[in-house]
Amino acid sequence: MSTYQTRRHALAAKLASENIALALFEDTEGRRDLSIRYFTGQPGDALLFIAADGRSLLVPWDMNMAASMAHIEDMVAYGDFKRSPYAAMAGALEHLGIQPGAVIDLPDVTPYPMYIEYVEACPDYDFRCTEAGASKHAAAMRAVKDADELAIYRAVAAITDAAMDEIEAGVRSGRLATETDIALFIERFLREKGCEAAGFDTLAAGPSRSFGIHCFPSYTAAAFATEGMSILDFGLSYKGYTSDVTMTFVKGKPDAKRTEMISLVRKAHREAIAACKPGVKSRDVALLVDGIFSEKGYVMPHGLGHGVGLEPHEMPAVRSREDNEWVLTPGHIITIEPGLYDTVAGGVRLEDDVLITETGATVLTHSRIVELG
Amino acid sequence: MSTYQTRRHALAAKLASENIALALFEDTEGRRDLSIRYFTGQPGDALLFIAADGRSLLVPWDMNMAASMAHIEDMVAYGDFKRSPYAAMAGALEHLGIQPGAVIDLPDVTPYPMYIEYVEACPDYDFRCTEAGASKHAAAMRAVKDADELAIYRAVAAITDAAMDEIEAGVRSGRLATETDIALFIERFLREKGCEAAGFDTLAAGPSRSFGIHCFPSYTAAAFATEGMSILDFGLSYKGYTSDVTMTFVKGKPDAKRTEMISLVRKAHREAIAACKPGVKSRDVALLVDGIFSEKGYVMPHGLGHGVGLEPHEMPAVRSREDNEWVLTPGHIITIEPGLYDTVAGGVRLEDDVLITETGATVLTHSRIVELG
Repeated sequence: MSTYQTRRHALAAKLASENIALALFEDTEGRRDLSIRYFTGQPGDALLFIAADGRSLLVPWDMNMAASMAHIEDMVAYGDFKRSPYAAMAGALEHLGIQPGAVIDLPDVTPYPMYIEYVEACPDYDFRCTEAGASKHAAAMRAVKDADELAIYRAVAAITDAAMDEIEAGVRSGRLATETDIALFIERFLREKGCEAAGFDTLAAGPSRSFGIHCFPSYTAAAFATEGMSILDFGLSYKGYTSDVTMTFVKGKPDAKRTEMISLVRKAHREAIAACKPGVKSRDVALLVDGIFSEKGYVMPHGLGHGVGLEPHEMPAVRSREDNEWVLTPGHIITIEPGLYDTVAGGVRLEDDVLITETGATVLTHSRIVELG
Repeated sequence: MSTYQTRRHALAAKLASENIALALFEDTEGRRDLSIRYFTGQPGDALLFIAADGRSLLVPWDMNMAASMAHIEDMVAYGDFKRSPYAAMAGALEHLGIQPGAVIDLPDVTPYPMYIEYVEACPDYDFRCTEAGASKHAAAMRAVKDADELAIYRAVAAITDAAMDEIEAGVRSGRLATETDIALFIERFLREKGCEAAGFDTLAAGPSRSFGIHCFPSYTAAAFATEGMSILDFGLSYKGYTSDVTMTFVKGKPDAKRTEMISLVRKAHREAIAACKPGVKSRDVALLVDGIFSEKGYVMPHGLGHGVGLEPHEMPAVRSREDNEWVLTPGHIITIEPGLYDTVAGGVRLEDDVLITETGATVLTHSRIVELG
């Protein structure tokens, strides 16, 4: 059985246990859902229907792409349903032999007007759209990486580390002197190493822009790593899975404020990673870091981290908000990315990808704060 | 009055005429809506409330960014609402003095579960979420470019033309030899010219991949413009507004099949643009192209075009589907992008951005099929 089929069967078992006959996944412009890639390998626009009995139907926009990339037996082109999701739903119900009265689970991001249209198009079925349905099950499955995914993560982490080494050398030598230089170095490097793309827009912020959590635009023709603190946040996507790291470059002798910020971020990064192990609430790790910062009068204006995977932001959550109930589990891969920002001093952030193991945590990437002197 | 305020007042008048007291716009991860940039200048995560009396409230994630980029008087940080959209809604209703019983319009992409939570959080109000609400009004407003936007489009079209000239020269000289070479040339060029970013992922497909409508990955280390047909589809984002063009490069003497495909695409591009003028249904322009292709036994597997603006795909629709009721209007900027694809011969597409004027159409960009011999 292919990995993809194993994943679909695991979801189907979950559906069966909750008396859901059929779940829909949708990956379209405006509502990207990489779960379809997770369950089939198909990386582009498609609908996917998974039934509780384990059978599935893929409805791709581009049949040529699906023929070469999707690992699934049953496919019907979206064009055959006149490019209507409601017609595709009706067709899938018939194709998979779902009985009237059965419970059909819609993605939790289904717009309210579309929900109404599904109900009107297939009035004999019981449509559900909740935050506790198949979308949540898929997110929880995707949060715990399987053997295939762990192998991919070891590869993408190694490529990311190699990129960081070359970036550090390039900045030190003066060869990479602007935000654009670094972003384009990454774009070329990752493709030479067999990656698909950047995992997200590279954020390269020189000293005048590093106070922003996520600089806008993501990179410009401006100088990087001149006097002060510069932030580089990037990820590489390998076989669909993205790394996510942040380096900080410090040029010149840091003043007292910057010295304190850098020291606190390093401490937070070290202690947070040391606290990561199975059974620990990710919220408690985030609260630990909040405490390290608040003791010195600082506040971090973003969460401590997040899961990574086919999307750069996945489950589990790693933040101190009260609604975060995630417990770290072997197979979780999360970012730990403490950062502090000041409109005058600039920003400093240090981010690595961390795998939760049976006994603790393994740091997959090796990011750094580079002091250039 | 700033352009942004003028736009907000125009929307407010529309709301008042439909007895809607307040409209919400949401620009967040997973539900990007550039309408907030259109109405305020703020390019990042935020909620925006516009009341029928013309008053507005922006709720940004990053107050530093908003202070420097948003043109609006009233702002409250999302953090002040504990980062909850429901708390922000309750706060906005109070802040703007909206009376109980009033009609509140939610974005048409609001997930069904969120709709239910808004209703539960603010039970004294009448929440609406339809495809005919403020989202649709904003899309219709954005489809007709105002004077500020037309000036931006003349600038981004000129930069895009300059990029195409340099790309053609670089390919002819052999300097740009791979998909990556071209994509990275564009990334560097656009920033040197003051653009923010690529308008979307550059699609560079050498002869072995050009049969796909949208190649995946978007570009690789593979050769470009070797024997056969290669497609380059890119756009530049200037002050937020994106161009969208496609060039095709033909290397070697094209065989009979390729010769026919190229000739048909050129004819379709020419005749479609000639047909564009105010009062014409965009569907009829698309049907004209369908006819040109079907007469020779070809089928185009995508729509003829689409509006461009703050997002690469905007209104009006330019396709032959029966539900397309758009009538071309002065100020519309649309793409015309006929293309034909064959798994053996490869693909050919020619795409330009076209402004509808009072009397006809002006082609803003100057794309081309480059025959390299």
